Amino acid sequence: MLLANASFYRAFSEGDAQAMVELWAKRAPVACLHPGAELLLGRDAVLGAWRQILRGDQGFELRCDSPTVRVFGETALVQCYEATDDQPAHLAATNAFVLEDGAWRMVHHQAGPLSRPIPKPEARGFVN
Amino acid sequence: MLLANASFYRAFSEGDAQAMVELWAKRAPVACLHPGAELLLGRDAVLGAWRQILRGDQGFELRCDSPTVRVFGETALVQCYEATDDQPAHLAATNAFVLEDGAWRMVHHQAGPLSRPIPKPEARGFVN
Repeated sequence: MLLANASFYRAFSEGDAQAMVELWAKRAPVACLHPGAELLLGRDAVLGAWRQILRGDQGFELRCDSPTVRVFGETALVQCYEATDDQPAHLAATNAFVLEDGAWRMVHHQAGPLSRPIPKPEARGFVN
Repeated sequence: MLLANASFYRAFSEGDAQAMVELWAKRAPVACLHPGAELLLGRDAVLGAWRQILRGDQGFELRCDSPTVRVFGETALVQCYEATDDQPAHLAATNAFVLEDGAWRMVHHQAGPLSRPIPKPEARGFVN
């Protein structure tokens, strides 16, 4: 399950549109809420936006910090903090997956800004 | 399914902490991402925050515009735009529910700001 979630961040970081297309569900209805943006609904809208995002020249690593996984039957929710390159996390995200043909495929992504950036977990000291 | 989603917004608008407690899943793990805030995980954290929010004196209607429902077996995802009172929507939200004891109970809520407020659907003209 965390592998599918990691695939999402790897596809983003590597600008790999084909991996992104493979990751999203083929039959289950998909939707996406990019930060600040209106809802994208359906595979054409969601993957069209991803292709556009990943076509950009200025690729960067999108890091997934502190993922939390909850599995409800054949559906799973992951929450995590998102960060670019080596920066503190500046977004909180919800990713949803369903089992499709034996693989966890993405059906939903929402990311929104954090009021206070959250440092990389390994950079945190013993004092909170 | 939409009834459970509507119950969430009614509980908020009416400041009804007990209805909010009833709505959230009792056994399935729950989590919540309020706008800008860090992840709340577990019933104590999630409901503690709701009790605090709903205790405020300055209650207001939280409206749910244009809900989109997707049901995956015994799990459901709702996306919608959130607005206060009669204003255009300023938040986009994801709500997740699971069937528990025959009722749809909430397991997740994330809301984040929209870059451009979205007018009430009935206030939209024919020109987009």
